Amino acid sequence: MRTALCDRLGIEYPIIGFTPSEHVAAAISKAGGLGVLGCVRFNDAAELDGVLDWMDANTDGKPYGVDIVMPAKIPTEGTQVDLDKLIPEEHKAFVERTLAELGVPELPEEAEQRAGVLGWLHSVARSHVEVALKHPIKLIANALGSPPVDVIEQAHSHGVPVAALAGKAEHAVRHVNNGVDFVVAQGYEAGGHTGEIASMVLLPEIVDAVGDRAPVLAAGGIGSGRQVAAALALGASGAWMGSYWLATEEYLTTMPGSVAMQTALVNATSSDTVRTRIYTGKPARLLKTKWTEAWAAPEAPQPLPMPLQNLLVSPAHNRLHETNDPQLVSMPAGQIIGRIDRVRPVAEIMAELISGYEEALTRLDKTRG
Amino acid sequence: MRTALCDRLGIEYPIIGFTPSEHVAAAISKAGGLGVLGCVRFNDAAELDGVLDWMDANTDGKPYGVDIVMPAKIPTEGTQVDLDKLIPEEHKAFVERTLAELGVPELPEEAEQRAGVLGWLHSVARSHVEVALKHPIKLIANALGSPPVDVIEQAHSHGVPVAALAGKAEHAVRHVNNGVDFVVAQGYEAGGHTGEIASMVLLPEIVDAVGDRAPVLAAGGIGSGRQVAAALALGASGAWMGSYWLATEEYLTTMPGSVAMQTALVNATSSDTVRTRIYTGKPARLLKTKWTEAWAAPEAPQPLPMPLQNLLVSPAHNRLHETNDPQLVSMPAGQIIGRIDRVRPVAEIMAELISGYEEALTRLDKTRG
Repeated sequence: MRTALCDRLGIEYPIIGFTPSEHVAAAISKAGGLGVLGCVRFNDAAELDGVLDWMDANTDGKPYGVDIVMPAKIPTEGTQVDLDKLIPEEHKAFVERTLAELGVPELPEEAEQRAGVLGWLHSVARSHVEVALKHPIKLIANALGSPPVDVIEQAHSHGVPVAALAGKAEHAVRHVNNGVDFVVAQGYEAGGHTGEIASMVLLPEIVDAVGDRAPVLAAGGIGSGRQVAAALALGASGAWMGSYWLATEEYLTTMPGSVAMQTALVNATSSDTVRTRIYTGKPARLLKTKWTEAWAAPEAPQPLPMPLQNLLVSPAHNRLHETNDPQLVSMPAGQIIGRIDRVRPVAEIMAELISGYEEALTRLDKTRG
Repeated sequence: MRTALCDRLGIEYPIIGFTPSEHVAAAISKAGGLGVLGCVRFNDAAELDGVLDWMDANTDGKPYGVDIVMPAKIPTEGTQVDLDKLIPEEHKAFVERTLAELGVPELPEEAEQRAGVLGWLHSVARSHVEVALKHPIKLIANALGSPPVDVIEQAHSHGVPVAALAGKAEHAVRHVNNGVDFVVAQGYEAGGHTGEIASMVLLPEIVDAVGDRAPVLAAGGIGSGRQVAAALALGASGAWMGSYWLATEEYLTTMPGSVAMQTALVNATSSDTVRTRIYTGKPARLLKTKWTEAWAAPEAPQPLPMPLQNLLVSPAHNRLHETNDPQLVSMPAGQIIGRIDRVRPVAEIMAELISGYEEALTRLDKTRG
């Protein structure tokens, strides 16, 4: 399982693993892929700096990358206090009423100080880039299309390539025109921010649209070697995987409070996700729970635009999290979670991807006329 | 491009082509695939009989199949007059108002006699089976899950295998338990009746769920050899293609009034479809037009259950059709229509599938370590 991408990124297998967990990211890199650490959870860039120090000490010199969330259109800026004033009372009341109906207790005073996610403010995302470029990162990915051109130039001046997500071929072309080096073709089935076109159709469209100007990574629906083979058959240079790493032992090392989330993923089928704007304000695929169902009810308000929706729901996410109830998890996840049947070490998943890939190619060999 | 399916069906390539056009079906079979004629348009079984006589005379002895639409749950039976009484006035008024707003003229008296589609009544679908089994058909496919067990037994008693569509693994297992011989895994991106799970995820799920009890055909998003290779990498034994044959010269031979529809397909991108209940009462993916947009408006009524919804909209479909306006076409179609850039002969598409498949395998060869 080797493509030109491997040489370009200095990795053994064309598997790019996105994860908010530094332990997962390091394990992916050590297993021969490229671990990409999600930065959106770091409201404070100094905290990210410390975690990247840990990465540098724990990846055996293997390449790794970071993922920022920088919307193409600059959203409302401001402190959390400023932004909170823009959230309608109707929405706050709906959240409170829903949590009460779901039996979710309030948090003790000291716990309530945990902030909402500010990582998608340009100011915060730029601080992530500043900090990350002081480390030997091999990729900056933007989870929401092209970052601003000056950010791309900043990365390039450090010799770091930039990847951007695209859910349509026209977006992919725009990214490449902006200087983006890799396109992540994010299919409908993917977790997190995603469009409406499924990978089977989207991937060759994007590959054809960008031609040899940029390698394309296939994102959405990948959790087995067969699926990596399908992605490469469709023209991808590698696979971008996210959801599948959530049910790993290493994830639990970073986030020990994630047992309920992992239980929910193990229990879920591929029908147990929903694409909705309730997490960030933009359409994103989430694990289907009582919380997402409440927002789908006819009496629920329309979600707010980014970044307000996440500021609205972040305190609720904290409260949902503390219930340790798999029915009340709030988590972006793709349809591939239906394949997750237990919590495993990263290396085991990686080994299975590689052997499954070889098996798929052997099967295809037999179809030659 | 050869799998065990080829021997089982007596075909050269594992390409199953569903189409309502006998000219397309015959051309697919003559090009080495299996043409499968959709029967739902034949309210009168005698008409189907005549068309199958034509197939027998025009397929050079190559195998072909038929596709019926027999819902698992028996819907309301009755004549069109009986059923019309069950349609609410609100719905009739919405249809009339929408057609007026879209500037769609009424039809002359004699044209209005064209009936709605009754092919999904069990009584009519059973008459299709009766008639088809008098011809040398090699497959009966049901576009809506398992047909009743006695219909499966009837087909088997004539040595004819039965295929059924599935949008979830549990449905596929149920079909096989009912005696179905082939499962058509219908991904979210597919045209017509479809579920929410994309092919990349659905296909290996169904392959694993049915194991070696039944070969699985991949449906949804297939219009190139790369996509056939992806489907086979995911474990499919063949590809089931529908939408891609709509933009063929042979289709126009059967339905000369389809120029506007073909123009619409050539113009459409992969974003120009929508999954909605407005065509049959069950979720189906259609070409996005002013008509589908009108039904998506907040003031539009909820679609009726099958078979009432199609009886409601069939006269409207006739009127929309007569406008010859690509913006007003009513047509089931999958996301793959974004790849259609011109009207071509069937044989050219088939040749491209085969060469594209070989290219994909050659590309995959280079990824071996």
